[in-house]
Amino acid sequence: MEQKVMNQTIMSALEKFNELDEKISHFNSILGLLSWDQKVISPKKGRSIFANANGTLRTEAFKLTVSEEMGEALSTLSTPEAEEYLDEAVKAKIRERLKFYNRSKSIPAAMIKDFSVLTSRANDAWEEARENNDFEKYLPFLEKIIEFKKKAVEIYGYENHPYDALLDEFEPGLTVEKLDPLFVKLRESSADLLRRIQESSYKPSVEIFEQPYPIEKQKDFNRYILPLIGFDMEAGRLDETVHPFAQPVNTRDVRITTRYLENNVRSAIFGTIHEAGHGIYEQNINPEFQDTVLQEGASFGIHESQSRFLENMVGRSEEFWKYFYPKLQEHFPEQLGKVALDDFYRATNAVQPSFIRVEADELTYNLHIMVRYEIEKALIAGEIEAKDLPGIWNAKMNDYLGIAPSTDSEGVLQDIHWSFGGLGYFPSYSLGNLYAAQILNKIKKDLPDFYESIEQGNFSVIQDWLKENIHQYGMLYTPNELIVKATGEELNADYLVQYLEEKYSKIYKL
Amino acid sequence: MEQKVMNQTIMSALEKFNELDEKISHFNSILGLLSWDQKVISPKKGRSIFANANGTLRTEAFKLTVSEEMGEALSTLSTPEAEEYLDEAVKAKIRERLKFYNRSKSIPAAMIKDFSVLTSRANDAWEEARENNDFEKYLPFLEKIIEFKKKAVEIYGYENHPYDALLDEFEPGLTVEKLDPLFVKLRESSADLLRRIQESSYKPSVEIFEQPYPIEKQKDFNRYILPLIGFDMEAGRLDETVHPFAQPVNTRDVRITTRYLENNVRSAIFGTIHEAGHGIYEQNINPEFQDTVLQEGASFGIHESQSRFLENMVGRSEEFWKYFYPKLQEHFPEQLGKVALDDFYRATNAVQPSFIRVEADELTYNLHIMVRYEIEKALIAGEIEAKDLPGIWNAKMNDYLGIAPSTDSEGVLQDIHWSFGGLGYFPSYSLGNLYAAQILNKIKKDLPDFYESIEQGNFSVIQDWLKENIHQYGMLYTPNELIVKATGEELNADYLVQYLEEKYSKIYKL
Repeated sequence: MEQKVMNQTIMSALEKFNELDEKISHFNSILGLLSWDQKVISPKKGRSIFANANGTLRTEAFKLTVSEEMGEALSTLSTPEAEEYLDEAVKAKIRERLKFYNRSKSIPAAMIKDFSVLTSRANDAWEEARENNDFEKYLPFLEKIIEFKKKAVEIYGYENHPYDALLDEFEPGLTVEKLDPLFVKLRESSADLLRRIQESSYKPSVEIFEQPYPIEKQKDFNRYILPLIGFDMEAGRLDETVHPFAQPVNTRDVRITTRYLENNVRSAIFGTIHEAGHGIYEQNINPEFQDTVLQEGASFGIHESQSRFLENMVGRSEEFWKYFYPKLQEHFPEQLGKVALDDFYRATNAVQPSFIRVEADELTYNLHIMVRYEIEKALIAGEIEAKDLPGIWNAKMNDYLGIAPSTDSEGVLQDIHWSFGGLGYFPSYSLGNLYAAQILNKIKKDLPDFYESIEQGNFSVIQDWLKENIHQYGMLYTPNELIVKATGEELNADYLVQYLEEKYSKIYKL
Repeated sequence: MEQKVMNQTIMSALEKFNELDEKISHFNSILGLLSWDQKVISPKKGRSIFANANGTLRTEAFKLTVSEEMGEALSTLSTPEAEEYLDEAVKAKIRERLKFYNRSKSIPAAMIKDFSVLTSRANDAWEEARENNDFEKYLPFLEKIIEFKKKAVEIYGYENHPYDALLDEFEPGLTVEKLDPLFVKLRESSADLLRRIQESSYKPSVEIFEQPYPIEKQKDFNRYILPLIGFDMEAGRLDETVHPFAQPVNTRDVRITTRYLENNVRSAIFGTIHEAGHGIYEQNINPEFQDTVLQEGASFGIHESQSRFLENMVGRSEEFWKYFYPKLQEHFPEQLGKVALDDFYRATNAVQPSFIRVEADELTYNLHIMVRYEIEKALIAGEIEAKDLPGIWNAKMNDYLGIAPSTDSEGVLQDIHWSFGGLGYFPSYSLGNLYAAQILNKIKKDLPDFYESIEQGNFSVIQDWLKENIHQYGMLYTPNELIVKATGEELNADYLVQYLEEKYSKIYKL
């Protein structure tokens, strides 16, 4: 009898939970579409008006996330008694909704509203400051944002380092304690590799990229490769924006963007492949997770691993271009007709320290992240102050990359992330590279013909592996569970270090 | 003291009402965008999944419309005591919300759900039936839809004719009693004019349209004229769909579509001008009505008057082509280089009875509507039965247009409207023509240089008049109030009859 009553309570809590979870997921799907629409195709005069409608729906979704009903259902369902009755997927849904609930519920509504106003103003101030190279104008906003984040981490709580509370938002379960050794190893080996590369006299010539590539031809080429590498064009779109991005609406409607620059043919090609990596991930999530909290990728880092894997491990490999280079030459006979494949391949992998993260090569990119990671950690721990950032930034750039920008616009002001409060976000980019290299190591073992497949343009065998081991799971597993399940071990920096060493040793004859 | 208490109650009801009205309007704005997205650009595999998310938001908006809170606020605010405190706009908002509330509240939720399932299936059945010329397959669905509509009109209530309850949904306040004399006059005079046109030996030659017009050039021309005739391209978009339509998202984001057929250059041009008429209306609604129930056009008929006015009264006028024809010739030198303006103008206004409504000319179009109006009225009144429709359809076509289709696909099965339950909708099209002609009569009085302005490509003076007298008001006035305010008199068929008589007398030398 006791047992039966229990069942009843759990069942009705579960029903309520599923109803709320579906509604929030529907609203998030719509919000995804709206965000894409406003960035990609909405007429500009309507945007500020539409922001109000958008805000109403966002608020509605947020209210459901932290509603009393949700709290009650979660509290009933997260007892050990209830867990006996729940399958893996339901437990994962509860885990994720509970995380959102606790995190959002903990911050007072007034604080959230103030922060929303602050970040909106901070974004304008940042844009202006970057344009005018005027850090002082941005400083008061940045200070307030850091102050808010410091308060927030105290509310969220953490065990060792306050930055853990921020990391957890983007990479659930990750801590400074786990991340520091990985990043130190990556940073030190990358800095050493960079030094050796700079000393090499066997350098690729990047002059082949310093000529105009007609944009219409670039579009043709990008639209040609996109379905071949695994992106389903009937379950997605490719559009153009200044800042490329991927936006899922649902698993059969995933929209990516790229940008075409006449004087930089690499930008569109690798931008498209990168966003395709994000897109293919979303397109292959288990359809049963559709309209639940599990319908998205496992974390920012795991997501980034899929885009980086396709962009770098696949798209910047010699075998990739063995297959695609003749087609690229057909598109650009004047520019590349007389350029040998090897020269082209080496040029696409040229390493050159530069000031701007988003333009960095595969090796120095991680060093850009290390600058930001060290700074964010120290800011949150109160070890440094925002007003000293320009100097600290330049010193770290000099330290890690051997160059320092002459303006703050090319330095500390270059990224949008802090202005929207995204502290804790940057590590995801390098985590993505670490995950990707570890996945590469495993996939090469499982598919000994990995590079031969690429050379033959057979990407489906690779996409099948990724779907089987990563994509299908959506948010079912935590990032750590997922990488252990997929590769048999916890995240380890050795694979990326080794991959970079091997790749550049060959390209630069080290 | 009593007075003060009253004030307090009204004030809080008003506050609640405005909050709900804004939220519903925001949701409707989003639903408009979603509908556009799914029709125009969404990847096809994602649509059936997205329909669930869309349905969740639609249900949410509907629930608010008929919520207890809304009912209470409306009941407090629609008392004579309250009305003393309310301005014209608030009263109009209450009028509109009360209409939605009463109409939606009156139909039981189960009935609405059943009807939604029915129309979804009916639409599939209709598509199949039209494709296979199989009326019998569609008949059971049509019978159920009519049965539902008959029940609904009894619930909605009506004074004289049951069809009044359906008319009211599309043209608030309109009745069979008012409409019959207008339509009879229009029908009889149109049939007579058609007879005389067919007897004329001075016929325009439409052969100039029976040749290919390259689609890229058509696009250029359409994009060229659109901003010139008053459509703000920064507050809207032009896209392509098989069935052109206009969709407002908000007053600064109005999206229209057109279609390009290589063998029918008129289709895109007049389709674009027609939809631009709808779009310009929405773009010029008072921004203060944004995010309220008043943010849209006054009725289907008034909306159609704006599209028809621009398409026919302006776009098919001789003066319009005096201005634009040289540019059109530039776009199509091979096709039109040797065709005189007068021959082109007459050809665009050629009258030819045909089976398909959407392809009909300006004169016979209304006769197509009369066929549908007479049938709908008789169906709802129980004077005819659905199973007899093919024969009735053909007889009426013969009666009004002098031709009868040889297949039901070209006859009674051609329109989508009945399959979604849109009985009462068709009259809006001819109402639009009637309103448009009455507006033309008034605008020519107010702007004696009306046709000279068109000839000089000066459309702003005309759009300013329309904005001042029609567009700005959104839903502030009922259609009848609006036409009286704009033209000084109630709707009258004489203006359209006279306009058609004058126009075709000249073109066909009657």
